[in-house]
Amino acid sequence: MPEQKPETRPDPNAVPVAVVSRLSLYLRELQHLIADGKETTSSSQLGRQLGFTDAQVRKDLAHFGHFGHPGIGYRCDELIGAIRKILGTDRQWRVGLVGIGNLGRALLGYRGFEQQGFRIVAAFDNDPVKVGTLVDGVEVCSLEQLGETINQQQIELGMIAVPAPQAQQVADVLVAAGIGGIVNFAPVTLRVSGQVCQVGVDLARELEQVTFVVSNRIAGS
Amino acid sequence: MPEQKPETRPDPNAVPVAVVSRLSLYLRELQHLIADGKETTSSSQLGRQLGFTDAQVRKDLAHFGHFGHPGIGYRCDELIGAIRKILGTDRQWRVGLVGIGNLGRALLGYRGFEQQGFRIVAAFDNDPVKVGTLVDGVEVCSLEQLGETINQQQIELGMIAVPAPQAQQVADVLVAAGIGGIVNFAPVTLRVSGQVCQVGVDLARELEQVTFVVSNRIAGS
Repeated sequence: MPEQKPETRPDPNAVPVAVVSRLSLYLRELQHLIADGKETTSSSQLGRQLGFTDAQVRKDLAHFGHFGHPGIGYRCDELIGAIRKILGTDRQWRVGLVGIGNLGRALLGYRGFEQQGFRIVAAFDNDPVKVGTLVDGVEVCSLEQLGETINQQQIELGMIAVPAPQAQQVADVLVAAGIGGIVNFAPVTLRVSGQVCQVGVDLARELEQVTFVVSNRIAGS
Repeated sequence: MPEQKPETRPDPNAVPVAVVSRLSLYLRELQHLIADGKETTSSSQLGRQLGFTDAQVRKDLAHFGHFGHPGIGYRCDELIGAIRKILGTDRQWRVGLVGIGNLGRALLGYRGFEQQGFRIVAAFDNDPVKVGTLVDGVEVCSLEQLGETINQQQIELGMIAVPAPQAQQVADVLVAAGIGGIVNFAPVTLRVSGQVCQVGVDLARELEQVTFVVSNRIAGS
């Protein structure tokens, strides 16, 4: 039987961002199937649930290896393991969260992170009233301790949840402290040097996907 | 001079989701350019800032019409107007938010929504302590008032920010009340009938994009 795991690490620059983004969707759907008691699936079933064609699913996965079994399809747990390995979430990542307002508190309590392999191990805020308190079991440190704490606690990823005008400054401190990647929740585009992987979370983007469909449906009906 | 606006409404099913998603990115980048005092741009400049090729930018926009001017490129404000019209955000949308925990409060305070044309006009929670209070100027109603309020207040979109186990039930009530579209922030996949456009916001997805790049870089170096 052929080896089902990816044989070589993909070049992250050679794989379209959209493919990586769909891997996350496949992973969630597979986790959902497992929770429903399903052991195997097919590219057409996986695609149908998510609104993609089976060809799209096969093409996306073909970037990373061959994962199907003749006459069986995909084994859900095996494909989950393979995708997590590709995404790098087959281990836990240590995350530092900057900004403990409502959004920061929501992120600290968000169950979806731990489920997918992310653990917020440190939190930072510049409000002296918050510094030293515990939020969801995580101690809030001052922003001055950011660089030192990132090194001591071996934090690999930073999440930015400060107001937009402060986000760039926080990003600069994270980069200077040697962070590997940044996920920015502030509604502002950050300029970060090419050495650090930075992704912005734009909470209005999904709303725009919905209004695109709803308004064009109304106009077309 | 040719008319620069889209002449016909696109069929929302014929345009790939990824294209719509990139329209949001182009829109943000154009807004950023305007804020920086730039009046015109090109597909290569727009693409470079976002990590896409100029061919990708042109192909995406070509789904909806011709927006460039010979010798000038794109006029930023004109292209912003065209994209907002395509996305349906050239007007304000009335949004109802369900779940006033930390995430709900963060969403109520999130400046990015108003900037892009979304106004949360009603909030709902099943906690009697919260019902009747004002959060960011919006009165919290009980879940029992959901259907009635959606009709009275002409709410078109619902945002779900309740814990995962309650999300499906809330979606069912929103659908029954005749909502046009749903954006789900709970870390769970909803099953919604095809008549209602539903998009899930997966806060771990962007983290996975970052770990993909960071872990494959480490492995490749």
